[in-house]
Amino acid sequence: MNDSEQSPQISEEGEVGFVEYQDYVSRKPFHFESGGSIPELSLRYETYGRLNVAKDNAILICHALTGDHHCAGVHNVDEKKLGWWNFMVGPGKPIDTSKYFVICSNVLGGCQGSTGPGSINPETGKRYNLDFPKLTLRDMVKAQVLLLDYLGIDCLHAVLGGSMGGMQTLQWAIECPDRVGRYIALACCARHNAQAIAFNDTGRQAIISDPAWEQGDYEPDEPPAEGLSVARMMAHITYLSDAGMEAKFGRRRRVVDESKEHFDVEFEVESYLRYQGQSFVSRFDANTYLYLTKALDRFDLHGPNSLDETLSVVTSPGLVVGFTSDWLYPPQGNREVVESLLRLGKDATYAELALDAGHDSFLLRDKKLYELIDRFLNR
Amino acid sequence: MNDSEQSPQISEEGEVGFVEYQDYVSRKPFHFESGGSIPELSLRYETYGRLNVAKDNAILICHALTGDHHCAGVHNVDEKKLGWWNFMVGPGKPIDTSKYFVICSNVLGGCQGSTGPGSINPETGKRYNLDFPKLTLRDMVKAQVLLLDYLGIDCLHAVLGGSMGGMQTLQWAIECPDRVGRYIALACCARHNAQAIAFNDTGRQAIISDPAWEQGDYEPDEPPAEGLSVARMMAHITYLSDAGMEAKFGRRRRVVDESKEHFDVEFEVESYLRYQGQSFVSRFDANTYLYLTKALDRFDLHGPNSLDETLSVVTSPGLVVGFTSDWLYPPQGNREVVESLLRLGKDATYAELALDAGHDSFLLRDKKLYELIDRFLNR
Repeated sequence: MNDSEQSPQISEEGEVGFVEYQDYVSRKPFHFESGGSIPELSLRYETYGRLNVAKDNAILICHALTGDHHCAGVHNVDEKKLGWWNFMVGPGKPIDTSKYFVICSNVLGGCQGSTGPGSINPETGKRYNLDFPKLTLRDMVKAQVLLLDYLGIDCLHAVLGGSMGGMQTLQWAIECPDRVGRYIALACCARHNAQAIAFNDTGRQAIISDPAWEQGDYEPDEPPAEGLSVARMMAHITYLSDAGMEAKFGRRRRVVDESKEHFDVEFEVESYLRYQGQSFVSRFDANTYLYLTKALDRFDLHGPNSLDETLSVVTSPGLVVGFTSDWLYPPQGNREVVESLLRLGKDATYAELALDAGHDSFLLRDKKLYELIDRFLNR
Repeated sequence: MNDSEQSPQISEEGEVGFVEYQDYVSRKPFHFESGGSIPELSLRYETYGRLNVAKDNAILICHALTGDHHCAGVHNVDEKKLGWWNFMVGPGKPIDTSKYFVICSNVLGGCQGSTGPGSINPETGKRYNLDFPKLTLRDMVKAQVLLLDYLGIDCLHAVLGGSMGGMQTLQWAIECPDRVGRYIALACCARHNAQAIAFNDTGRQAIISDPAWEQGDYEPDEPPAEGLSVARMMAHITYLSDAGMEAKFGRRRRVVDESKEHFDVEFEVESYLRYQGQSFVSRFDANTYLYLTKALDRFDLHGPNSLDETLSVVTSPGLVVGFTSDWLYPPQGNREVVESLLRLGKDATYAELALDAGHDSFLLRDKKLYELIDRFLNR
């Protein structure tokens, strides 16, 4: 539902081109906020541009729930899938790789190369599955800090991201004020409201109630595909908007077997969503989906005492961007972060863009969004 | 999520009291809009109040997707469940049973006593399941017409209902202009938008992908419970509103096993929704859910040519009521019906109520809603 699906031509002009991921491995135990630990961890990441001598031109991009480390360029001539934020990242683009050294890592707990529930526990030789410790967004940030230490970067020029990436961004500004030059959080919130928790739990129930889930101990080639697919279909609706879906699909129909009820695809929107659900199963792990949605539901900057108290430690300047058609993380939830920061006398600002792509608006190729990010990164 | 769950005291004052359902049976074949047919049909219904000698004081109430014929009173002292619109229907209430003879029938295709996919096909001795003909809202109205004929009612004082009941109400005004004295359609629309279809299809996929569905040929005591429960959880969210859920549940937590991830209930809203899902399975048939949601998705007053052309045959005065917090059938979809009627020079009016219960607002005990219905029924 974003322009990146329209596969623009890959040109050298403005493109980062071919990229390769790397794996950072820490052989030391990693302790989670929940008290659990794992004996070692690995983070898969990509970088674009060059780190300067002063090591002060690094930008960390935090990805959303089902995103990954591949946010720009292509991996090779056979696998031309553009990174998920390719429009935003490249030479001459808002996140200008001719000036900045851009880092994007798959989160701790992820399933795209970083250590997560589907990884092998070196102590048992088996997958963690539900033995993976309870995960929070602070754990994700703490793991990214290890990566920055490894890269020798004391202070980031900026941290930014949308959705779960926006929430990690806020967490960065809170946890490591000295290491964040500035931050931009898009389409985010200080905490999930009841509706967001409700959608996530319904998705989790779809997975857990799939017999193939096997209490989390499914084989990777026999995942709870039906449950995960339904969870994704539902979640995908929440990433879009009423108006956006109406413009893209409306009530357009496919050819249908008229003889009797089969409940096959009848409307285009059904075909699109079913495809989204099915293709998600091939690229995402069900237990990881459970863990990450739980981390999101538990994220709460209003705790333990108040939003103001949590944000009081922030020292970096920040920009928060809400989108009018985003009903998953509505503008109000973005605004309240900046209202708190301003109440605290912090250097913070808020923008609200009227784009009709819903929550996914932060992924759009939009001039106003580009200008906002460009100007704030370079002010 | 509506006041009726708070079980007010049953008193004779203002209450219809004990009620019994009846079954209307037609032994003639019933032909569906789709071309299919069934050899006979049964409609379960309740009535409250007394039909006058002129037989001109009857009001037909049409129920919503998962509603039924039991809209007021109680069945007996042991089963004190109040009808779903008990606040609205009774002596002295907006739908005043001391003046009107009120009829509410379970729809054709339903699973609460009327003939539907779960009924036995007398020609085969087996349940119809997916051999039940494709169903439309016109079929439901056509079956209700048979019931009115049987009751000897030529012209209804009024037809009304909310959600799917509102759409049936509009269909009544179109199909039988001479038999509808006036009509009130609440929280409805002229057709589903892409988002509404998307949610319905995701629910259907949850059911269909449950192995227990067995291509529709499950035994009634071994239904696709997990899939139906997930479908209901998701649908239930769409019946509420962001603000309403936040006010009722917020992020309130239950006591949780902290030892490891179990994905048990952690937030109150999860407990509420899971209960809604599970209890739905005991009262609703999965195939019926598939058929009724399909009927809703296919309902389209804009077809075959235009909304204006479809509504041009309406002669009865009508009231349509939208609710500001209803994001399933948003106000715009209600307004456009009246805009068309007014464009056609019809006697029609629109009201929009600012209630925060989302789509389910039409079920609320609300003074403004009561007054609207009372005044329009009695003007």
